[in-house]
Amino acid sequence: MIDAKEYLKKMSAELDGPIKSYIGDEEPSNLMEASRQYPYAGGKRMRPAMAVATCGAVGGDKSKAVPLAVAVEYIHNFTLIHDDLMDGDSKRRGMDTIHVGYGMPTAVLAGDALFAKAYQIICDLDVPAERMRAAMKYVSDAVWDLARGQQMDVNNEGQIVSEEVYIETIKLKTSVLFAAAAAGGAIIGGADDATVKAINEYALELGLGFQMFDDYLGIAGDESKTGKSVGNDIRKGKCTCMVTHAIRSIKDPKVLEEFKGILGNMDATDEQCARAKQIMQEAGSIDYALGLARQKVDNAIAKISFLPESEDKEFMIALANFAINRDV
Amino acid sequence: MIDAKEYLKKMSAELDGPIKSYIGDEEPSNLMEASRQYPYAGGKRMRPAMAVATCGAVGGDKSKAVPLAVAVEYIHNFTLIHDDLMDGDSKRRGMDTIHVGYGMPTAVLAGDALFAKAYQIICDLDVPAERMRAAMKYVSDAVWDLARGQQMDVNNEGQIVSEEVYIETIKLKTSVLFAAAAAGGAIIGGADDATVKAINEYALELGLGFQMFDDYLGIAGDESKTGKSVGNDIRKGKCTCMVTHAIRSIKDPKVLEEFKGILGNMDATDEQCARAKQIMQEAGSIDYALGLARQKVDNAIAKISFLPESEDKEFMIALANFAINRDV
Repeated sequence: MIDAKEYLKKMSAELDGPIKSYIGDEEPSNLMEASRQYPYAGGKRMRPAMAVATCGAVGGDKSKAVPLAVAVEYIHNFTLIHDDLMDGDSKRRGMDTIHVGYGMPTAVLAGDALFAKAYQIICDLDVPAERMRAAMKYVSDAVWDLARGQQMDVNNEGQIVSEEVYIETIKLKTSVLFAAAAAGGAIIGGADDATVKAINEYALELGLGFQMFDDYLGIAGDESKTGKSVGNDIRKGKCTCMVTHAIRSIKDPKVLEEFKGILGNMDATDEQCARAKQIMQEAGSIDYALGLARQKVDNAIAKISFLPESEDKEFMIALANFAINRDV
Repeated sequence: MIDAKEYLKKMSAELDGPIKSYIGDEEPSNLMEASRQYPYAGGKRMRPAMAVATCGAVGGDKSKAVPLAVAVEYIHNFTLIHDDLMDGDSKRRGMDTIHVGYGMPTAVLAGDALFAKAYQIICDLDVPAERMRAAMKYVSDAVWDLARGQQMDVNNEGQIVSEEVYIETIKLKTSVLFAAAAAGGAIIGGADDATVKAINEYALELGLGFQMFDDYLGIAGDESKTGKSVGNDIRKGKCTCMVTHAIRSIKDPKVLEEFKGILGNMDATDEQCARAKQIMQEAGSIDYALGLARQKVDNAIAKISFLPESEDKEFMIALANFAINRDV
């Protein structure tokens, strides 16, 4: 049985060189530094690892998927730079965010530059042009959807939306890029359309589970590990499937009123945030969310059961389980 | 002899339908509206017209270049949205800029979305994948350079840079996208590498002339037509080739001091701005800049002299002349 965390570490080490090789010493140097900061700083590297693994799982030459892996990681980091700017967040991975360190204009441009670089890299993929085009299509569709998902996230802020809207939002803002990485790797590996489609669906489901678990960590995680203040999502009124479940499940109107009074209250104390969490726990909302995340991951794994056994397939399964079983 | 302005109007009318056909009624509606606003509102449409004309000038089927034309126009508008945000500009084409109308996060995302949409469109070009890849490469390289050029522009603000740095900056922030449109159109039209290269160089030179003339309009244009306040570039201390020429040409130290005192002074009066303009005029800087712009356009036209005579070639020449002979 593969230990996804250890395997990811090994793959990160292998991908680190390529990830750090595409942004050279062009002018202007402040833009280059700003563009490099996030992708060079690390992270879980789940998306690039997935692109490489799916290529291998369909019997392809994994080295050919490495540039795509880098491109997807750059796109992920471009969205992080713009996200941090939009959210006004000041720290990421222990460093100043780009708009804090370099100013707003450079944050906008560093995101744009990483996005452009990702496409330059994909254009140069060492595969027949038809396969390059197919992989590029998945990636372009994903970035279009990403922008839509992030806008939905902005629009949802402070709103109680339905579970359906919540799932559509996290699908667009999180799953589609996982799915593009997975499909792209399979395409580069030479997979047929049906296999690409199944692998794409695997990653879409995995991404949903991943984001649901991320939301869980946001209220129940270990702050010292996640780097996120546990009360923040509650104070921001972030509408997760825990919140939507609680809203529709709390029977006592007084408790419901109390819960709604804390949610989205930027001045809520730590005690109040803890109380909101307790209310969700008592309403079964946290167990519900974890169960839903588990279900998505089970769906993901079922989608790829037809693939022949291999270390890469095993890693794909381990990665799906890791998405909902991690402390950061 | 083709009248470029009239011809552009005719082409704009033909391109308007395609330009307005790619952003549908997906969710969320505020992002769709924000993404549509600039490209749907009009503009000179020089870049898309160029993509179509170069395709025709090499004997290609011009209808196949239309999607690329749209993609390039979207990319141009994506950079305008981000530019307006970075510059804090509040009006464009008589309307509120996107960050003013929709807020900063939506301006960031609308730009990103237009960028992604452009790539979706290019992926679907109705040409062999190898040609799609070649066109895509020009476009991706251009956007990478664009971000660099815009960052240089930010870095140059309030600085006196050399003419060399000025030209490198406008090449990156303006010419490369013209050049990608031109090269892309020629590639779609089936041109060989040498022809694509020559057409690319034509548009690079044209773009330089265009931007130099744009800077001229910025201090000498008719405000009621350009929509730009004539003193603004002087108050912002924008380093144009008129400014660099003046700085190196003004003999009288007192006049030089007076000039430097007005340049970059956000509180400069209209009279002071007019005086700065007069100083540049007396130093021959305005004539110098216009001469340089003329030279670039002559270079541009010379690059495509080898093309067989056609209406499209004639338009390419007219467009180059129009770049430095327009009131808006």
